[in-house]
Amino acid sequence: MDSKVFSRELSLRSVRVTDAFWKSEMELVRTEVIPYQWEALNDRVEGAEPSYCMRNFRIAGKINREKCEGGETYEAPQYTFRGCEAKPEDPEHLKDEFYGFVFQDSDFSKWIEAVAYSLTQHPDAELEKVADEAIELVCAAQQEDGYLDTYYIINGRDKTFSNLRDHHELYCFGHLTEGAVAYYQATGKDRLLRAACRFADFIADYFGPEDGKCKGYPGHEIAEMALVRLYEATGEERYLNLSSFFIDQRGTRPYYFDAEHPESARECSEMTQKGDQKDELRFQYHQAHLPVREQEEAVGHAVRAVYLYSGMADMARLKQDESLYAACEKLWNSIVNEKMYVTGGIGATHIGEAFSYPYDLPNDTAYSETCASIGLIFFARRMLQIRPDARYANVMERAFYNCVLAGMALDGKSFFYVNPLEVVPEASHKDERKFHVKAVRQKWFGCACCPPNLARLVSSIASYAYTESADTLFVHLYMGSEITKLVNGQKTAISISSDFPWEGTVQIRVRAKGTGLRLALRLPDWCENYRAEGLEKARTEEKDGYLYIQKDWDEEDTLQLFFPMQPRLIGANSNVREDVGKVAVMRGPIVYCLEEMDNGANLHLLTLDAEEEPAVSGGEICGVPAKLVSWRGFRQSPEEEGGALYHIWHKEEIELVELKYIPYYMWANRSENEMQVWTRVAGTNENEGESHKKIKHLKKI
Amino acid sequence: MDSKVFSRELSLRSVRVTDAFWKSEMELVRTEVIPYQWEALNDRVEGAEPSYCMRNFRIAGKINREKCEGGETYEAPQYTFRGCEAKPEDPEHLKDEFYGFVFQDSDFSKWIEAVAYSLTQHPDAELEKVADEAIELVCAAQQEDGYLDTYYIINGRDKTFSNLRDHHELYCFGHLTEGAVAYYQATGKDRLLRAACRFADFIADYFGPEDGKCKGYPGHEIAEMALVRLYEATGEERYLNLSSFFIDQRGTRPYYFDAEHPESARECSEMTQKGDQKDELRFQYHQAHLPVREQEEAVGHAVRAVYLYSGMADMARLKQDESLYAACEKLWNSIVNEKMYVTGGIGATHIGEAFSYPYDLPNDTAYSETCASIGLIFFARRMLQIRPDARYANVMERAFYNCVLAGMALDGKSFFYVNPLEVVPEASHKDERKFHVKAVRQKWFGCACCPPNLARLVSSIASYAYTESADTLFVHLYMGSEITKLVNGQKTAISISSDFPWEGTVQIRVRAKGTGLRLALRLPDWCENYRAEGLEKARTEEKDGYLYIQKDWDEEDTLQLFFPMQPRLIGANSNVREDVGKVAVMRGPIVYCLEEMDNGANLHLLTLDAEEEPAVSGGEICGVPAKLVSWRGFRQSPEEEGGALYHIWHKEEIELVELKYIPYYMWANRSENEMQVWTRVAGTNENEGESHKKIKHLKKI
Repeated sequence: MDSKVFSRELSLRSVRVTDAFWKSEMELVRTEVIPYQWEALNDRVEGAEPSYCMRNFRIAGKINREKCEGGETYEAPQYTFRGCEAKPEDPEHLKDEFYGFVFQDSDFSKWIEAVAYSLTQHPDAELEKVADEAIELVCAAQQEDGYLDTYYIINGRDKTFSNLRDHHELYCFGHLTEGAVAYYQATGKDRLLRAACRFADFIADYFGPEDGKCKGYPGHEIAEMALVRLYEATGEERYLNLSSFFIDQRGTRPYYFDAEHPESARECSEMTQKGDQKDELRFQYHQAHLPVREQEEAVGHAVRAVYLYSGMADMARLKQDESLYAACEKLWNSIVNEKMYVTGGIGATHIGEAFSYPYDLPNDTAYSETCASIGLIFFARRMLQIRPDARYANVMERAFYNCVLAGMALDGKSFFYVNPLEVVPEASHKDERKFHVKAVRQKWFGCACCPPNLARLVSSIASYAYTESADTLFVHLYMGSEITKLVNGQKTAISISSDFPWEGTVQIRVRAKGTGLRLALRLPDWCENYRAEGLEKARTEEKDGYLYIQKDWDEEDTLQLFFPMQPRLIGANSNVREDVGKVAVMRGPIVYCLEEMDNGANLHLLTLDAEEEPAVSGGEICGVPAKLVSWRGFRQSPEEEGGALYHIWHKEEIELVELKYIPYYMWANRSENEMQVWTRVAGTNENEGESHKKIKHLKKI
Repeated sequence: MDSKVFSRELSLRSVRVTDAFWKSEMELVRTEVIPYQWEALNDRVEGAEPSYCMRNFRIAGKINREKCEGGETYEAPQYTFRGCEAKPEDPEHLKDEFYGFVFQDSDFSKWIEAVAYSLTQHPDAELEKVADEAIELVCAAQQEDGYLDTYYIINGRDKTFSNLRDHHELYCFGHLTEGAVAYYQATGKDRLLRAACRFADFIADYFGPEDGKCKGYPGHEIAEMALVRLYEATGEERYLNLSSFFIDQRGTRPYYFDAEHPESARECSEMTQKGDQKDELRFQYHQAHLPVREQEEAVGHAVRAVYLYSGMADMARLKQDESLYAACEKLWNSIVNEKMYVTGGIGATHIGEAFSYPYDLPNDTAYSETCASIGLIFFARRMLQIRPDARYANVMERAFYNCVLAGMALDGKSFFYVNPLEVVPEASHKDERKFHVKAVRQKWFGCACCPPNLARLVSSIASYAYTESADTLFVHLYMGSEITKLVNGQKTAISISSDFPWEGTVQIRVRAKGTGLRLALRLPDWCENYRAEGLEKARTEEKDGYLYIQKDWDEEDTLQLFFPMQPRLIGANSNVREDVGKVAVMRGPIVYCLEEMDNGANLHLLTLDAEEEPAVSGGEICGVPAKLVSWRGFRQSPEEEGGALYHIWHKEEIELVELKYIPYYMWANRSENEMQVWTRVAGTNENEGESHKKIKHLKKI
């Protein structure tokens, strides 16, 4: 893998995020999301569907104790502070059975991961105690052989791993492992990590290339990247090898999932013979239609896809596997060149929560799941670790500030699963094709994947903002932070401050005298001309969208970067039918949108006038400060009441208006109302004035 | 019902259609559709899913014969000429059971109805003989008590009428009755009519307002209008009363369908309590959510809806029921002012094959079922019979020449069920949300409702073109015809010739000397200034879109009407979000569209220049003559291969092109390709030149 520059994520214990913008998001997670989630996991939220997550662990633990009677003495954990104890009113009608989704265990794992990250930035003894107790409860559910999935512990181990395609044991294992590694790295406590290792060992004994071992692989990916993380935390090669086996085995023929489900295989084969379905379309949902190195187009369930690709990128880096890296590149390009919303959202169709075909990016029926955008960030960070190229970081930034943040309300109390780019509440209420598109955030979800995923991501943002190699600190995202880094055994300190995403000034103070520290600072794609100060004596180089800085550091050096943030109009590739003749407004990394409450109803009647200059002002939404943008445009006069459905066309009556834009991620915080990112623009295809010069020739067709 | 002018449909035996355009459509039905359908009904089409329709009648007849053994002697019909005999190879695996959809009987009924109409225009002894034999076979299936639905005859009569909501006995009865009346009126033969009456009598004994009778009504409407037809053919009031009962009973509380399906009632009630669904949303699919007089918005399954409304209009006319007429008017307006495509298609969503909410008329996911547009024509004709107002006839014409004709290929051999206004074949193949939108017509359908419905409609077009009152002939549609009409016992002859829909000249020769004949000629809404000749001595009056003509007729009078047919640009109501900034092209009654094969791929990149003048030329599509329209416009240059998904917006490079339009109904006859009715238009919301004058004021919002 020539020309690659590998880097690793920064330990969160060596960064302290001080950034006004992100710190407040992290505080929302710490003070709102994590406590709320904990109550939810324990079925203590009034009016919410119970999760049963911790209850399932408790039941599984009880089953273990019953087994152990007369054998090993089981010590029941002691609970304090609103811990994992059953609700006093645990309803009598509940039996000692498994309740909830088959992947319910993973809710705990995402929660503990978020807790771990949060503790690195904001130590909290009380929270840590709750977490320790929760871990005890989970570990008590682990069986003697290391198996730890409450669904099968409660329902009978004989069916273990019998339905890899649809059930989620390996998915739950993956999340458990991610949580365990994070908690270990945050606190140094290895109770959960040891449990994860035992479960991993059990799985490694069961699956693998050796004769007699199962040749299956996960239906919902995540174990691939989780095992890499476990390998990196423990140094145990067998975890890396197991991940490698899952990746290589995927999509090989005969299809493993067919052996598991002979009936669907037969049905599919009959359909194929009738020409109703092509054989290769099978298992696209699971990215198991082809061996991963032959996959060129991002397809199927979007979250699963980017989780898989993240694991592939990890493996490509660690094994320096060129063919796997080439596949990652193709899949990356497939997403960002053909299948990504301007917000960094992915997954254009709710059917299968999946990618649609290239350039099919409808705004009003978008799926664009919060988790999928989070997974895209995972993938981007891992690609950056292989090669520091701003292509990846630009997308990561886009997803962070737009699709992902939109997933959570400004008060941290409600969440979007689906992140459309255009909403008409009436359609969401009355049109079954848009029932998945909610016009207001929801309190919690039956399938509660997005809120905890968001919590763990936001709490660990520093590990996406920065990666490092031996002598270099890569700065992918700008945010206020205090970072310490060892270079050749010598401690350096880098202090960054900025008002991103609202202002483009970044100040970097470096204390690295006598070290060979190199800085690599990303030059965002939204900024054509940046300015730097304090580089007089430095050796600088621009490469792949990064400014590399080396110098003989003084006791303390101060650098400044200025990235101008004019509002800009964005056009989409002309293959995107939904966006033709339309523009989106961006400023810095922020995508803007129009809301009905600022612009009146019928946003589709508005046209932005590209000849006019935008205005930027400071403002706030629900008390949260933001830069607002306004742009002159027109409003087509709405139809008279009771007007005919069709009429002889005439130039519409228009009135001049000021289009008032707010950051997309802040939409739907003030009321249920229309929202629109892509707006018609005046200036396209005019046959008058300036544009005449651009007319090439009259072509008869 | 003051101010109403009632008229009745013209007997098809008193009209001979000579029109070049419609005659060729009728010939397609006679020579292609009717024979093909007959083969299909008898499971003799190679490669097609068997219909089992005639087979079911045969099995039911056999059950009857077995019952009659020792009793009444059953005489098995003798079959000749590819009649209803079983295929020699009737597969052995088939048992004496019912096969196919629960409403399979209706396929025969629609076929016999088409045959009947066809015989009035083109006598055909051989076809009539096949039809007579088919009727024998069907009548042999009728049970002693008059019941005639093969599904329950074969599966057991004990469950008769036990599931009015989902099963289709009353629907099949309705179609049988329509076919029977048509065949009687066409041939004078009453064998099938008597069977229909016996079945109707059985139903009238079972359902009704009297104590002890069932209070149900049809799940899928049609019996309402069929019973009216039976009443008009026989003069038997009890059929009118039964229809009236079904209409009045519909939607009353407690809901009859709930009594039939207590489980769904309970579920729904639980959902209502949880706030998931409002009680009044129930049964919208069946138009049974409210008593019909309280219904103001067209909702639910579009075919069912317009079939019901047709029956309501019949009843309003016959009973001079003002409140029922008022409901019909509201429902009519709901459709044509808020829920109808420019093609006369209705039903905007495939979910429930239903109407969507007002102004929700997506072009690319449209349902716009052929049958629904046919039903809209039924409704329109019946509204015309109450009041000759061109509002109704204009819609009827729109539906006939556009949505309905699009349902059949130019060779009469394949059919559309769904009639979208915008198609990208890739989307139809890859996007499950558009799987219902076919880019090419299909040979036949498992649920074969549209082709036979189209056959019966086209064959009887004269009964939509004309209605009559005692002294007046109403001409709603222009087509070449020879009509005879009695006025005060004296015979008049009216001969009409025209080149509609391609030319707007209509010649009418009248032989009505000494009679008080009055002509009422529709003035189409697409024509602002017509010219008339030969009216020098006539007394004329324009009213509700009709030109009334009375005069002292000479031996032969010749009138001429000239309706100019310039291509015109149509705009949609600004509430139709999908069509904002776009135009459709029409000429006369014909809606035009762009196809990829004439205009290149990526039709969404085209813009029509409204400042330019259109050009009309004679041409043909697959050998069928047509007027073609071209209009200057622009093409946005497509993206470079591999271009970025998003870029800084700039005025697009454009090239001047000639947009080549063909009649919408002729699309998809040459190949699978993109098609588009609504195209972006230049001239909207420009801030330069002319349009500046229209800017009202700068309004701060």
